[in-house]
Amino acid sequence: MYVAKILITLRKTILDPQGKAVEHSLKSLGYDSIKDTRIGKYVELKIDEKDESVARTIADEACRKLLANSVMEDYSFDVIKSEE
Amino acid sequence: MYVAKILITLRKTILDPQGKAVEHSLKSLGYDSIKDTRIGKYVELKIDEKDESVARTIADEACRKLLANSVMEDYSFDVIKSEE
Repeated sequence: MYVAKILITLRKTILDPQGKAVEHSLKSLGYDSIKDTRIGKYVELKIDEKDESVARTIADEACRKLLANSVMEDYSFDVIKSEE
Repeated sequence: MYVAKILITLRKTILDPQGKAVEHSLKSLGYDSIKDTRIGKYVELKIDEKDESVARTIADEACRKLLANSVMEDYSFDVIKSEE
C-alpha cells in the first residue's frame, strides 16, 4: 500500500484571486509581512499496489487525466509507503 | 524571506464527499487499486521576516485565525528559507 500526496497549484503566470483575497484578509488582521499568497489543492490517494513504480505511474496518470488542468495548473507528488 | 507551505485536510472522522467523488471517477477510469481519496487545501505564504521562528508563528496564527476551521480540519506546515 502506498500513499500519494499530490499538490496542484495554479501556474505562476495565472492570476490567483482566491490567494489575493486570503492575502488581503491576513493583511487586515495585521500580518503586514505576508507578501504573496497562492492557494492550491491537496489530494491524498491510497494506492493498493506492491510496486512503488506502479503506484507512481497511477498517481501521475490520475493527475494528468483527472485531477490537474494542464493548461492552468502544475502538479507535483510524493509517493510514500504506508502500512495501513 | 520565508515560504510557508501549509496543508489543510478534513479530520479523519469527517466525511469527505469531494474525495469520494474523485475516487469514484478514478475507479470508472479503471484505477481499481485506488482505495481512499481525501481532498484538502494547499496554501503558500511568502513571509518577509528575517527570523524563522517569527515566520513560523505567523504561519501558525494564520492557520488558526483564518485558514483552517479547527472544528473540522487539521493543518500542518513547513517553513522554508527562500531567496526571492
